[in-house]
Amino acid sequence: MNFRSVLAIEGVLLIFLGLFMLIPAGFSLYYREDDLSAILISAGISVTVGLVLRLGFRLNGDLRLKDSYATVSLGWLLAAFFGALPFYLSGYIPSLTDAFFESMSGFTTTGASILANVEALPHGLLLWRSLTQWLGGMGIIVLSLAILPLLGVGGMQLFKAEIPGPVPDKLRPRIQETAKILWGVYALLSLAEVLLLMAGRMSLFDSLCHTFATMATGGFSTKNASIAHFHSLYIEVVVIFFMFLAGTNFSLHYHGVRGRLQAYWKSEEFRFYLGFVAGGIVLVTLANLLAGPAGLFGALRQSSFQVVSILTTTGFATVDFGHWAPAGQMILLLLMFFGGCAGSTGGSIKILRVMILLKQGRVELRKLLHPHAVLPVRVDGRVVSPVIVSNVLAFVFLYFIIFVVASLLMSLMGLDLVSAFSSVAAMLGNVGPGLGLVGPAANYLHIPAAGKCLLSFCMLAGRLEIYTLLILLTSDFWQK
Amino acid sequence: MNFRSVLAIEGVLLIFLGLFMLIPAGFSLYYREDDLSAILISAGISVTVGLVLRLGFRLNGDLRLKDSYATVSLGWLLAAFFGALPFYLSGYIPSLTDAFFESMSGFTTTGASILANVEALPHGLLLWRSLTQWLGGMGIIVLSLAILPLLGVGGMQLFKAEIPGPVPDKLRPRIQETAKILWGVYALLSLAEVLLLMAGRMSLFDSLCHTFATMATGGFSTKNASIAHFHSLYIEVVVIFFMFLAGTNFSLHYHGVRGRLQAYWKSEEFRFYLGFVAGGIVLVTLANLLAGPAGLFGALRQSSFQVVSILTTTGFATVDFGHWAPAGQMILLLLMFFGGCAGSTGGSIKILRVMILLKQGRVELRKLLHPHAVLPVRVDGRVVSPVIVSNVLAFVFLYFIIFVVASLLMSLMGLDLVSAFSSVAAMLGNVGPGLGLVGPAANYLHIPAAGKCLLSFCMLAGRLEIYTLLILLTSDFWQK
Repeated sequence: MNFRSVLAIEGVLLIFLGLFMLIPAGFSLYYREDDLSAILISAGISVTVGLVLRLGFRLNGDLRLKDSYATVSLGWLLAAFFGALPFYLSGYIPSLTDAFFESMSGFTTTGASILANVEALPHGLLLWRSLTQWLGGMGIIVLSLAILPLLGVGGMQLFKAEIPGPVPDKLRPRIQETAKILWGVYALLSLAEVLLLMAGRMSLFDSLCHTFATMATGGFSTKNASIAHFHSLYIEVVVIFFMFLAGTNFSLHYHGVRGRLQAYWKSEEFRFYLGFVAGGIVLVTLANLLAGPAGLFGALRQSSFQVVSILTTTGFATVDFGHWAPAGQMILLLLMFFGGCAGSTGGSIKILRVMILLKQGRVELRKLLHPHAVLPVRVDGRVVSPVIVSNVLAFVFLYFIIFVVASLLMSLMGLDLVSAFSSVAAMLGNVGPGLGLVGPAANYLHIPAAGKCLLSFCMLAGRLEIYTLLILLTSDFWQK
Repeated sequence: MNFRSVLAIEGVLLIFLGLFMLIPAGFSLYYREDDLSAILISAGISVTVGLVLRLGFRLNGDLRLKDSYATVSLGWLLAAFFGALPFYLSGYIPSLTDAFFESMSGFTTTGASILANVEALPHGLLLWRSLTQWLGGMGIIVLSLAILPLLGVGGMQLFKAEIPGPVPDKLRPRIQETAKILWGVYALLSLAEVLLLMAGRMSLFDSLCHTFATMATGGFSTKNASIAHFHSLYIEVVVIFFMFLAGTNFSLHYHGVRGRLQAYWKSEEFRFYLGFVAGGIVLVTLANLLAGPAGLFGALRQSSFQVVSILTTTGFATVDFGHWAPAGQMILLLLMFFGGCAGSTGGSIKILRVMILLKQGRVELRKLLHPHAVLPVRVDGRVVSPVIVSNVLAFVFLYFIIFVVASLLMSLMGLDLVSAFSSVAAMLGNVGPGLGLVGPAANYLHIPAAGKCLLSFCMLAGRLEIYTLLILLTSDFWQK
């Protein structure tokens, strides 16, 4: 392992993190609130530690596969830890575990909170909270488009033929170019959402925070009632639209921004995504109509928002769906496993994998009748190699292993089945709210400390697409 | 499709079924109870319809793959329907849906009941109820050992090298020989259990019924309190032992009966099975010790029984585990997906598949670090072909698709999440009791009729290892 390079890179990361803290510090200064010193101290600590690492260890160009796994996993852990400092040092979150949970929930774009009263936080901390999501969301896109395909983690390499083969050295310029384009698209869409939200009479501050949380499919709100606070159909529609965009493959937006709108419809994953959104909305609306006295429009409005919010793994709410009829709740729980498209800021298993799974299941069934037929899985008309298919199957399998083991551990801490299962599903999929004790009207404050650590692990495992984190736990990784 | 042969075979099946009804008729006569005429009429109807089919359609030797799928699926449906007649015609189960559910639950060895008061049934019907399980259990073994391997459905062909390749004509003598051996072992073990139960002062009648239900991993009891009724540690131990044997691959028992006891330990699947049983008992005991004031011995006794009962998919109970702490309930819920060994009477996904899944997951993880390494999955030291691995993955995937869709439909009928999920898990795995509304102290009577039909479908799909039934629903099947 190339420890020196890994640590040097983490140094750069921490310097950037510290500098980004100056943005909330600015808001804190403007609003003259009591979180300013805590934010500045946190920024100072991050930059100092970053400089020590950057200057203390020499960046040696020879980064191997193992090193990139370690860099990414350690980087997210460090970001979550240093990102927790403003919450902790300001005293607004007096427990370090809680502050770490909140920060991890931010950077992984999960959106689960331990805050019972979000509105008690000063503006600087609220902005930092939302900004961690925006930073995490972009980090993920870069990761999923640029780094993960090299590692054969599945997903993007299907479409990204323009990213060359598995030779890291040749790739670097291409990755940087891609990353720049994506940052551009991300920033552009974010700007558009801020403006549209402000047009709906949301303040600049709230528009910024909610945009950060929307585009990252994060879900942190500055209001206790989340989006329901605004009582505005217009704002709900804007948020639905941008949650949907954030759950879309960003390479499609790149084409879209350049006027090639047909790229969306040509993408089979996008069509599946659209189908899941539409199907989810129809089913949940039906379930809610069957169960309650809500009118069609009200049911449709509530269902649309919640389905898009959960499917894209954002986690905003306009209603406490913990009080819905069982079928509506169950559909949301299931949607937590779908997630956004590959190459989006959405988490969970991702539409592309779900799609390959469905197709592979169909192929296997047909093979029983035609044992000697060659029936490949195709995506966008191209054959998907068996290696990728088996990789996808293994991914989903590991995802469920973690889901089951973590749920079991949560139930050992005394959580009822629905709360245990849904909290883990929500963390692993980076969704945010679950059902039962951790429903949208509740929060994660009363989960035992061990449970918060476990759920933090799940958030990170989900965000890093399982493999990146799990690989560090294998003995093979540490050999030689 | 060779409809004539299919129908002629179903005719033979119905004749056998009718003849088997004479056994409960004998008990009915002995106890002079009011169910005699209903049983005799049912037997008459079955034999008559069977004769009409057998004589009306000529058996044409040319049975193809499609025909065997159709034969098996239709056969189970017919058995469940005609097997329901004694319950329905006697008036003890006045609804045909309910009678069909009870009969399907019997033949599929599920053990879910719609009877609130089992003890109100006369002896003849009680015996028939248990006998359907015994017949279903053996049918399944023969099916999985003799027919399914030809169809490449996965499982037995791994180990059954002695069952030759995929040419049906060559196989027939071998299959019949295998079937005879298995019937012999099954009967022998059943006899042993009857004698051991009687040694514990259980009546001959109850010993017979409980043996039928144990050896088939069925779980129907003649008592409302199931095995708890007997308040006997001895009986619990005997039942645990035979549930465990029934969940073991019967080809191992064949070796065992011949004195080759080392065959058990040599089987990797058996070692996994033992591991899951031991692990499950330890975990559940721990969970119950942590949660309640039960002593170690009491917790161990309850946990051992319930773990073996649920893992082997039998479904007997000595306690209402619906009142356990969440962790204990969750472990049982998870165990419902494991099931017995391949080639046992146990249902669900089966240990062999779970084992291959776990190994494949490990291989995929190691492949990420060593992308070019050839890392096959091995069982018993032999390489498992990728075709079988992907077949297993697809099986598990389809299993979960059905699980999810059926759970969703159950929740649409108003069941809470825990009841909906656990009822489907219990039906698909042929376990019997679930959690919540369908826990061990409750029954399936109050499920809506549509739900009973759906659950019946799940029982059958689970029993026929998904493919056999699902294949009939594909358009490919009916082409040409």
